Amino acid sequence: MNINVILFPDFETLDVFGPVEVFGKVEKSTINYYSQQGGIISNKDGIRIETQKTDNIKINDVLFIPGGGGIRKEVGNIEFLNKIKSLAEKSRYILTVCTGSALLARTGLLDGKKATSNKRAFDWVKSNSDKVNWIQQARWVIDGKYYTSSGVSAGIDMALGFVSDCLGDEVAEQIAFRVEYNWQRDKLRDDFWKQ
Amino acid sequence: MNINVILFPDFETLDVFGPVEVFGKVEKSTINYYSQQGGIISNKDGIRIETQKTDNIKINDVLFIPGGGGIRKEVGNIEFLNKIKSLAEKSRYILTVCTGSALLARTGLLDGKKATSNKRAFDWVKSNSDKVNWIQQARWVIDGKYYTSSGVSAGIDMALGFVSDCLGDEVAEQIAFRVEYNWQRDKLRDDFWKQ
Repeated sequence: MNINVILFPDFETLDVFGPVEVFGKVEKSTINYYSQQGGIISNKDGIRIETQKTDNIKINDVLFIPGGGGIRKEVGNIEFLNKIKSLAEKSRYILTVCTGSALLARTGLLDGKKATSNKRAFDWVKSNSDKVNWIQQARWVIDGKYYTSSGVSAGIDMALGFVSDCLGDEVAEQIAFRVEYNWQRDKLRDDFWKQ
Repeated sequence: MNINVILFPDFETLDVFGPVEVFGKVEKSTINYYSQQGGIISNKDGIRIETQKTDNIKINDVLFIPGGGGIRKEVGNIEFLNKIKSLAEKSRYILTVCTGSALLARTGLLDGKKATSNKRAFDWVKSNSDKVNWIQQARWVIDGKYYTSSGVSAGIDMALGFVSDCLGDEVAEQIAFRVEYNWQRDKLRDDFWKQ
């Protein structure tokens, strides 16, 4: 399992590193971090992390797109959107967390597909595309090769669900156990959509 | 709230970034990342993050120590232990996640105090000090200014508990809600200790 994590300025910390914790526990997985220009990418939590340029991506297995405050700028970044679209078309799976689905929606690749997003930013997310079948009540949603999750922590549940789908439930259970995480296995249960 | 995050090679990803997600949502919080030598610190999940030297720490408010595979080497790093001890003595609060408590125990500062740690590495953790009152069944443990949590994901619950203790339950609840996290509020409930 080869994971390409896409970063941009002001990404949401746990959107990225919750799922990364899960992916890193999969045997023989490799995780690489990319951004449009490469170099150091920082966010509001004081994190400064090294990335490579998206042009350097060679293996298109799992494309991972987090959300965060910075997404509001990136949905207007045409060059970046074109790159994401091209990468997503080539990738075996595409996973988004939180408002990462808004970015993916802007590429048009979610047109006619089911997807979800952060419950606190749902109206804004929907405003990015009226061609997506936005599902409000879901921890995460699967449509073909596209996995989209609700806000922040939901990414961990989805990552475990993804591992379960790819490698079996036992592998996902073992990872959750090792990281002492109370995995919410039911992707339809959503404690955050109403409020 | 000023958080000094201590990093070392092969730190555990979610040990750090779960709590960081919580701290970053506290108003006017600042989070800085330090290591013994400063510079880029990397781990097995392919993360390469910039840090400053621990010598640069000026404000000693909250000292945060994660765990991870790298701890097994650091418990024998006398210079690092002395630095951690000196920083912990000056800090208002010290929080550890997972095997981070083994490092803190090696400084002697937990002697006679209650503490917990990762449930999969508990025997190894205990072997680092027989003067600590190790509590096996707990999500997190508080003794004076020392907060120690169980493995990996438990750090998120403890971080929310810490915010609740410092700033009130409503602030912690709001943060959990914003990041769509099902907070396990009961620090005595431990689903992972027996197995």
